[in-house]
Amino acid sequence: MTKIRLSDGAGGEAMQSLLKSSVLKYLTEFQGGAEVSLSALDDSGIVEGIVFTTDAHTVRPLFYPGGDIGSLSAAGTINDIAVMGAKPIAMAASLVIEESLDTEVLERIIKSMAGTCKSAGVPIITGDTKVMEKGSLDQIVVTTSAIGISHPPLAENNEYMLEKGRKQDWLLDSNIKDGDVIIASGTLGDHGIALLSFREGYGFETELKSDTAPINGIMLEALRVKGIAAAKDPTRGGLANTLNEWSDKSKIGILVHEDNIPIKDSVRQASELLGIDPLQVGNEGKVVLAVEPESAEKVLAAIRAHPLGRDAAIIGSATGEVKGVVLETEVGGRRIMEPPVGDPVPRIC
Amino acid sequence: MTKIRLSDGAGGEAMQSLLKSSVLKYLTEFQGGAEVSLSALDDSGIVEGIVFTTDAHTVRPLFYPGGDIGSLSAAGTINDIAVMGAKPIAMAASLVIEESLDTEVLERIIKSMAGTCKSAGVPIITGDTKVMEKGSLDQIVVTTSAIGISHPPLAENNEYMLEKGRKQDWLLDSNIKDGDVIIASGTLGDHGIALLSFREGYGFETELKSDTAPINGIMLEALRVKGIAAAKDPTRGGLANTLNEWSDKSKIGILVHEDNIPIKDSVRQASELLGIDPLQVGNEGKVVLAVEPESAEKVLAAIRAHPLGRDAAIIGSATGEVKGVVLETEVGGRRIMEPPVGDPVPRIC
Repeated sequence: MTKIRLSDGAGGEAMQSLLKSSVLKYLTEFQGGAEVSLSALDDSGIVEGIVFTTDAHTVRPLFYPGGDIGSLSAAGTINDIAVMGAKPIAMAASLVIEESLDTEVLERIIKSMAGTCKSAGVPIITGDTKVMEKGSLDQIVVTTSAIGISHPPLAENNEYMLEKGRKQDWLLDSNIKDGDVIIASGTLGDHGIALLSFREGYGFETELKSDTAPINGIMLEALRVKGIAAAKDPTRGGLANTLNEWSDKSKIGILVHEDNIPIKDSVRQASELLGIDPLQVGNEGKVVLAVEPESAEKVLAAIRAHPLGRDAAIIGSATGEVKGVVLETEVGGRRIMEPPVGDPVPRIC
Repeated sequence: MTKIRLSDGAGGEAMQSLLKSSVLKYLTEFQGGAEVSLSALDDSGIVEGIVFTTDAHTVRPLFYPGGDIGSLSAAGTINDIAVMGAKPIAMAASLVIEESLDTEVLERIIKSMAGTCKSAGVPIITGDTKVMEKGSLDQIVVTTSAIGISHPPLAENNEYMLEKGRKQDWLLDSNIKDGDVIIASGTLGDHGIALLSFREGYGFETELKSDTAPINGIMLEALRVKGIAAAKDPTRGGLANTLNEWSDKSKIGILVHEDNIPIKDSVRQASELLGIDPLQVGNEGKVVLAVEPESAEKVLAAIRAHPLGRDAAIIGSATGEVKGVVLETEVGGRRIMEPPVGDPVPRIC
């Protein structure tokens, strides 16, 4: 009898395989009138103009430098709506709590979640709470869902999305065309490396901090410029997973220049010591964009003007010249940027 | 230090108290432009005409007579949209799975969920999967969320909801007025008593079966008649909890006639042996309606014409003559129908 493995839930290829054989096979049989269906495996599904997403959060420890399961679960779901090019308008929160959890711990989580929601302008309007017997759940699982709609002023003025006659209603993974420029909104690897380091007590705690944050504000600034083809928050599996999903779904090669990828020195050093690729671990407050080349510098400037986008950089472009995702190294060599098989750092989101 | 108790997640008064002090206090501070906010504690929240709900499911065992965690999690969330008077249009599913769970078990759950969604006409268009280490979660938790909108044909023809000049957009717990008739769509107590009996091996397995089913079809038939003021699926805490919530929020007494409440003989017998009130345990395929008196018989007939509503009955009415919820017994005596303090049967949904 086959059994679920830890890597089946960690993003990357192992997870794709479990999802395909045991979950998607059955759930995708009926998709009603979905505009973006489950089969697309995009950040959200869409029906009747409503963008809809859900995420379960099992991060350990519950509190870490730069965030906690409360801020993470709020930001993560808001971000999955925002990267579709939509305006997140409401959230739902389902708590499953282990009997005997301190109510102070619960309150600290909820306060943090509430603060993140308020700062992002997205209220939690519905919820559920269940308690499981002591020993049948490790502390708490927080599942958040969110809904979004078109940004009304952008959509009304017909200034939405792309300039060059390419039609699209939403920022889908499959939208990218030859020549589109890839922009990262900031330093990569912060969340995964900070969390692993803190959890395992490697001693980089003072320098490393997760980037947990809602990115709907930065997305709105980018959308105002126009020229955005696709956007994705590089969570599980990191940048490597994001770019490989884009390459697969858009059927286009992506060439990335290693020396242009923003990575903090502290993250780079910790990554080397830990033997973990910072491009394969999750980020929780970053967005990667594919942008029409004519708009790339303007979008970059708009993102850099946002407090969360100061380290934004153009890191590569979509091109028919390569197959899959290729990393051009600092010395000019090229190698394939593979998606991780299982996330190298489990339970970080 | 206060710790979470099992009864805090079981519906009823203990849960209300935990929710108020540790969760709602913080989350309700910011509710944006919600039409029905979290503070209403109704079955769904509403924003921009979108009805939104979420539920975590921790039922044990995973498979039981009449249903399983897959069908339950699909039906439960569909029902929370339907009882607002809305048309459920899409669902989201978040799975948190224990490492080492048999993939056959997972597939059986997903197949059942998919079947229920298809039969109700509500596709799962987005999802998430996480895996927790062996021993840190008992098997699986399934969290479903759903969105709904106005029933287009009913809304367009202005035939929505009420007849008598009482204005309302949705079926809220606070809508009920003196004279409204209370209808139950079928037998009560089936799910809770069947599940408890099966789980504890009391030996009624051949007779008792859960009622797990989506009720959006029956709700649509009722709405077509017009005259519906409120609707609620009597899940955690059962009929007793539903009617007490209505009485509190609508500020009106409710008088229920015990001999009119449909309860299966097998459920009644098992309840007596187990010492559990069938009106205090959850149902998963029933709806209780508050209906304008002029429409009550027509609504009852419409419900009875539906395969899931054959045992429907008028069980009482809202009245200023009593305070809270009062049960008139078969011999003519009256007693208060209290909501349960904690659900007498934990982990049934």
